[in-house]
Amino acid sequence: MARNSRRSDCPIHCALNVLGDRWTLVIIRDLLFSSRATFSELLNSPEKVATNTLSTRLASLEAAGIVEQLAGDKRYLLTEKGLDLAPVLIELVLWSTRHDQSVSDVGADLQLYLAQPQQFIEQIKTAARQRRINV
Amino acid sequence: MARNSRRSDCPIHCALNVLGDRWTLVIIRDLLFSSRATFSELLNSPEKVATNTLSTRLASLEAAGIVEQLAGDKRYLLTEKGLDLAPVLIELVLWSTRHDQSVSDVGADLQLYLAQPQQFIEQIKTAARQRRINV
Repeated sequence: MARNSRRSDCPIHCALNVLGDRWTLVIIRDLLFSSRATFSELLNSPEKVATNTLSTRLASLEAAGIVEQLAGDKRYLLTEKGLDLAPVLIELVLWSTRHDQSVSDVGADLQLYLAQPQQFIEQIKTAARQRRINV
Repeated sequence: MARNSRRSDCPIHCALNVLGDRWTLVIIRDLLFSSRATFSELLNSPEKVATNTLSTRLASLEAAGIVEQLAGDKRYLLTEKGLDLAPVLIELVLWSTRHDQSVSDVGADLQLYLAQPQQFIEQIKTAARQRRINV
């Protein structure tokens, strides 16, 4: 798939130029909510993403400034731009949970998100920032 | 791309099985925010989706219960499941607008969404439901 081929300046279209596939938001999910962070850990997600797919997507995410690697650290880390995708993921979880009986309970306190969305998102981002520090 | 090939019960993965490509959420954007609703109108979006891509995506969206066509009506209409994607789209707009200077201003009152998210989403859904009635 040709990446970064913008056909309009619509913010949704432009976002999907980077995020619009089956895997990219799953990788960001792992970096945001799980302890998986290295290439081999990300390969071992429940969905078993293919090696070349993971490699391509991580390269796109780095090029877009959503993910970064620090010198001497094998982990892929979300930048602030990446962390700011938390509400998109949470809204996907809410939609899926509401309309698909067969999905699993993610254990997140979705009621807290509905009542205090910004506070909940800040908690998630703070936890993810903390994992950046703890090796 | 093989559709509906679930590899886990994760709600994000399951959502992306239907929504995870460059075009599906652009089509839903048009149905939710614009007056484009027939096949030929959707073909004329600013991004000029290819005919076969539009056809495939609309079939997937109908199979997933996100879009429907009523007898004698050429328009594709969002179901309640489709309307419930409004927050996902709005969060993508917010993220894109925050992190990409080159995207256009969508004209939506994003401050109202930040202050009163559920009220704002209800307004959008009500307007889209109203367009279902008006032929």
